Amino acid sequence: MGYPDTFEGFVVDSAKTWNQYHKAELKPKPFEDHDIDVQIECCGVCGSDVHTVTGGWGEFEGPLCVGHEVVGKAVKVGKEVKGIKEGDRVGVGAQVWSCLKCEVCESKNENYCPHLVDTYNSSYPDGSKAHGGWANYIRAHEYFTFKIPDEIPSAEAAPLLCAGITTYAPLVRAGVGPGKTVGVIGIGGLGHLALQWSKALGAKTYALTHSPDKEADAKKLGADGVIVTSDDKWFEEYKFKFDFILNCSNAIDKFDLPSYFGTLKVGGEFHMVAIPEKPLPELAALAFIGNACKLTGSHLGNHQEMEAMLKLAAEKNVRPLVETVKLSEEGCKEVVERVRDSKVRYRFTLTDFDKAFSS
Amino acid sequence: MGYPDTFEGFVVDSAKTWNQYHKAELKPKPFEDHDIDVQIECCGVCGSDVHTVTGGWGEFEGPLCVGHEVVGKAVKVGKEVKGIKEGDRVGVGAQVWSCLKCEVCESKNENYCPHLVDTYNSSYPDGSKAHGGWANYIRAHEYFTFKIPDEIPSAEAAPLLCAGITTYAPLVRAGVGPGKTVGVIGIGGLGHLALQWSKALGAKTYALTHSPDKEADAKKLGADGVIVTSDDKWFEEYKFKFDFILNCSNAIDKFDLPSYFGTLKVGGEFHMVAIPEKPLPELAALAFIGNACKLTGSHLGNHQEMEAMLKLAAEKNVRPLVETVKLSEEGCKEVVERVRDSKVRYRFTLTDFDKAFSS
Repeated sequence: MGYPDTFEGFVVDSAKTWNQYHKAELKPKPFEDHDIDVQIECCGVCGSDVHTVTGGWGEFEGPLCVGHEVVGKAVKVGKEVKGIKEGDRVGVGAQVWSCLKCEVCESKNENYCPHLVDTYNSSYPDGSKAHGGWANYIRAHEYFTFKIPDEIPSAEAAPLLCAGITTYAPLVRAGVGPGKTVGVIGIGGLGHLALQWSKALGAKTYALTHSPDKEADAKKLGADGVIVTSDDKWFEEYKFKFDFILNCSNAIDKFDLPSYFGTLKVGGEFHMVAIPEKPLPELAALAFIGNACKLTGSHLGNHQEMEAMLKLAAEKNVRPLVETVKLSEEGCKEVVERVRDSKVRYRFTLTDFDKAFSS
Repeated sequence: MGYPDTFEGFVVDSAKTWNQYHKAELKPKPFEDHDIDVQIECCGVCGSDVHTVTGGWGEFEGPLCVGHEVVGKAVKVGKEVKGIKEGDRVGVGAQVWSCLKCEVCESKNENYCPHLVDTYNSSYPDGSKAHGGWANYIRAHEYFTFKIPDEIPSAEAAPLLCAGITTYAPLVRAGVGPGKTVGVIGIGGLGHLALQWSKALGAKTYALTHSPDKEADAKKLGADGVIVTSDDKWFEEYKFKFDFILNCSNAIDKFDLPSYFGTLKVGGEFHMVAIPEKPLPELAALAFIGNACKLTGSHLGNHQEMEAMLKLAAEKNVRPLVETVKLSEEGCKEVVERVRDSKVRYRFTLTDFDKAFSS
């Protein structure tokens, strides 16, 4: 067997062997009229991949092929597909399908569709499994497949498809722009993009970090100011300062959340895009009533936001800082281990897929 | 001594003697040009009074005169006061002062002013203490003193000044109105007003209650539907249903919050106005990402919202269900005990202040 009947990917068998990868055959869903097959050129590495393969977010059934920041070439296009043709350079993010007809989808919130299919570790309504992008091909619905602007190199485009939209959409939905003041907590895979979006959208933007050694990077990425939160009293001079805070840190269980909340304006939003495995620290209703702040989180963005994000990245030169690693058994092991240990500044993209699958 | 140099009120000495009240002299702040003295006719009893006198919200310094749902007659009006004149029937709620010049106040959020003075258990910048409304007189800044519409009897107007504004303002700030679907959790002192506001504002309104025996009351108060949450699976048929949920229940520590969150539309708000002494149940960031719901809370409302609320109550006949109790040592004891034990449907107003202070 082989394409188009089967794809081939690097898979992990179980959480116990989370850092061990080997090639395996993958059976894609049946090809339908709105589907696109993408021959993969490269794929980003996301914190979600590591939460999943280590079992941190729960059990999974192996063999599992992760990866949901996919860039490649459209090689087969369903007959109902509009806007993408064979040969186009396209991207697929962390979602490959939704019903597109429920009330949630009709309100342009298909990223919250109760029937949505994640790019991997997820099943279609017909029972077919979805397989991720550490593979030679991926099959996705056209609504979740996006043309990549010419200005953006593939290895830099890849992380935009998950880390990018995850940090861009909540800023836009909260109306971030000129006249607003934004705080970004955690300068890592998500945060280093969030800083750039916030600046590109025109907001005054502060980086909040526990690591004084990230100050220089944050400024290079455009931060108007850097607030080091390792001092117990850091928040005292920032009361009622921020319209919006985006939490990109996995260490929220160690935060004194009321201190962060107190730096928001009345009705301001503390928005979580990092989804740590540990619960939030204990909270009381009282923590919200000093300024009616809102605690929330989100999952990706919608189709229109994805397109707008790619356009903004092209126009304003928003780019992830990427370290590339060649796709291989060793490459997969290296990237999951270093992401788990936060030893990357700030994002990995697996490359050289043509070589990995040439034999 | 006596009015205008001193006021007289029923006071509690300490949390240990939280249900024992006696008359004592109260020293008001110095009278200034924007102040109004109100001769009190009646005063509502709020859950906050009980949280305070029992020490549930923290220590307090006795002797303390509580009560912050005050209705009476303006008997002395500072020379800068506009809009209220001697003899007017007026109300004072849970706030008597804010600086009115900081950014928070200038954004019409004086109910979150960092310098605000609560009606009792609070001090003015000059060190003067603020004294509550279980007294013969109260002194308040004109911005926190409101004319009571003729249509509303005093004993029913009193609870509007705290319970009313507390439940009205968040609905209005969230844009509740025709086309919106609202859930009100907890049919008690706050919730029975919230149901009425939501209906008066034009929203489809559901009562959520753990007590099936409150169903009839909820429908009488205007609920379009009553959802009994004592069944483990109650939420399954209400996914993505509500634009806004107002939590008026003190039992939130016993809630499975993700079940409630899941009944919100994308971006919907779970808004807390009950401020229980216990913390929220454990929560993970994951609980927010199925629909980007927002968890928030609030404190009272602003001047404009208070005026709009009183107008709406007059026009749409929104009224608390009030049991009146005569002000006396025994009356104070009875109301705090019965509020603590939730043995009131749904609100107390202490009355007959003229007799309590006639000697």
